[in-house]
Amino acid sequence: MPHITLNSGEPGIRGLLRFRPETARPLSELAEVLLRGPGTLARGERELIAAYVSALNDCHYCSSAHSACAAAQLPEGMALVEQVRANAANAPVSAKLKALLAIASAVQQSGHNVTAEHVAKGRAAGATDVEIHDTVLIAAAFCMFNRYVDGLAATTPDDPAVYAAGARRLVRDGYLDPAAEPTREA
Amino acid sequence: MPHITLNSGEPGIRGLLRFRPETARPLSELAEVLLRGPGTLARGERELIAAYVSALNDCHYCSSAHSACAAAQLPEGMALVEQVRANAANAPVSAKLKALLAIASAVQQSGHNVTAEHVAKGRAAGATDVEIHDTVLIAAAFCMFNRYVDGLAATTPDDPAVYAAGARRLVRDGYLDPAAEPTREA
Repeated sequence: MPHITLNSGEPGIRGLLRFRPETARPLSELAEVLLRGPGTLARGERELIAAYVSALNDCHYCSSAHSACAAAQLPEGMALVEQVRANAANAPVSAKLKALLAIASAVQQSGHNVTAEHVAKGRAAGATDVEIHDTVLIAAAFCMFNRYVDGLAATTPDDPAVYAAGARRLVRDGYLDPAAEPTREA
Repeated sequence: MPHITLNSGEPGIRGLLRFRPETARPLSELAEVLLRGPGTLARGERELIAAYVSALNDCHYCSSAHSACAAAQLPEGMALVEQVRANAANAPVSAKLKALLAIASAVQQSGHNVTAEHVAKGRAAGATDVEIHDTVLIAAAFCMFNRYVDGLAATTPDDPAVYAAGARRLVRDGYLDPAAEPTREA
């Protein structure tokens, strides 16, 4: 049960966004720009970084939601998402994505943990400054979203079908549509 | 030296916002709503929560900037900010603010660390659902901002006068004005 009385029965961050539309707007815009805006990282790769960080933070709602979004937008589907979540360093992804996942993992612990070596490895594998910037900010943003959801004890559905249905809507409509997050009715 | 090549010499988050205006907009809006928007927590109290979490995350830029903003908007000034940063549980603040700082400290570690007891203590001291919500989101947001700044090794001025000058502008103009963050030229 959430720590505060929400004004809807919507689960996860969706119930929190509904409760406080003033903060919902910039939070939704941030997710839209980072995960779906114009960029050289594929949307599935960006969702994979979000899912990975959310799993490191042990946020069941966000890791389930963004794993489903990554799986829906990566050719390798959920199998690859599970390999990354289990062991990113050995997952069958490009050297560039592996280096970006290592940066994201460092950010999840502390910004101070990102080293010049992390960045050099990314750059050697072809990562641009914007890709490095966005990886750091995606990882940092999910350290916020995860704490927001779990810090208020938002309702977290167990059924994977809920997240798969939510991902279908997010892939289609994006994060600016408040109806696009997973619901129990999905 | 920042991990990426920025397009200005502006320090801290200001240089990062200048580099990537697409993400700067929602980030600035989020700070404006949380720290300065209409609400029952004083602006100085909200800045104090931001400064406290930033200090727990050992983010020198953000803790200096928001300590200066808190000091500029609290009757007790920097002396109180320093007491809270040194030992929030014993600082001379209201029972409500003390309970909210304890929630913020839990969020800084993990959303899972916020307990029903934390929330009950806040409520018993008069905290509303919106105040509890906003405290969790301010703490979570600074877990993002701190990681963003340190994860990209943003330039961090040492001179306290830089942060004091930045605070004067932020108090006057808010976070939506990109010129309102601390600069070396301040």
